Amino acid sequence: MKKLATLAFAAAALCAAVPASAQFAKPEDAIKYRQSALFVMGQHFSRIGAMANGKAPFDAKAAAEDADIVADMAKLPWAGFGAGTEGGKAKPEIWKEQAKFKEHSDKLQAETVKLAAAAKTGNLDTLKAAFGSTAGSCKACHDAFRGR
Amino acid sequence: MKKLATLAFAAAALCAAVPASAQFAKPEDAIKYRQSALFVMGQHFSRIGAMANGKAPFDAKAAAEDADIVADMAKLPWAGFGAGTEGGKAKPEIWKEQAKFKEHSDKLQAETVKLAAAAKTGNLDTLKAAFGSTAGSCKACHDAFRGR
Repeated sequence: MKKLATLAFAAAALCAAVPASAQFAKPEDAIKYRQSALFVMGQHFSRIGAMANGKAPFDAKAAAEDADIVADMAKLPWAGFGAGTEGGKAKPEIWKEQAKFKEHSDKLQAETVKLAAAAKTGNLDTLKAAFGSTAGSCKACHDAFRGR
Repeated sequence: MKKLATLAFAAAALCAAVPASAQFAKPEDAIKYRQSALFVMGQHFSRIGAMANGKAPFDAKAAAEDADIVADMAKLPWAGFGAGTEGGKAKPEIWKEQAKFKEHSDKLQAETVKLAAAAKTGNLDTLKAAFGSTAGSCKACHDAFRGR
């Protein structure tokens, strides 16, 4: 009986050592993964921003391609915020207020889907509006959950 | 006439200062961009590899999702290898043998499209074969163009 209890304990300990970040070989990979996905997304998003803000000529085709990449990339970073992956610029609040963090990440994904649709219209004003909403979603999450 | 020549020279100089990497604010961003895209791709590709090599249980749905992300990500890094973006682990040969480098990047993209199709069959042997071909494409390019 004691042996069984020891075995059960060992199994439980093993499970505890395999958190949601199990798909990453080590926590550093999860951190690098989310930072990489956010950086790629940010690069394409900022190109749309340059067009929306009149700092670059409006190129409807490029904007549509950028927006599709933004929408694809927006799905990825969140898997890199699993248990035990605290670090980088991520505030500890992410792991304490997971429901709120998920609300923000869901919101961003919804906004980027709208952004991609807006970009496909080829209308700069439509794109500007969608860019503004999406940027607001980025900022709200950064204000709450990103440190320096 | 002299004024016109000066103007033409100034315009040419401006063009020379706006290389293929113009979509990045600075060369470091291009380097970080390509490294980020390759890292995200590599993470998802290695998950397929773990299944193909029997180190992780075969999960057809996860493999198909990973392969779709790999195929999407495989399109991105190359824009980050524009003129004036030497650095990181990239060998200088990339900028000297651009046709050969492009052959490798085109090959990878074609292989990842096949990988995504193979993953959708839900057949592990089909996935293994496609994983092997894709991994061969990664390796060939790394051997030729990636330093340490």
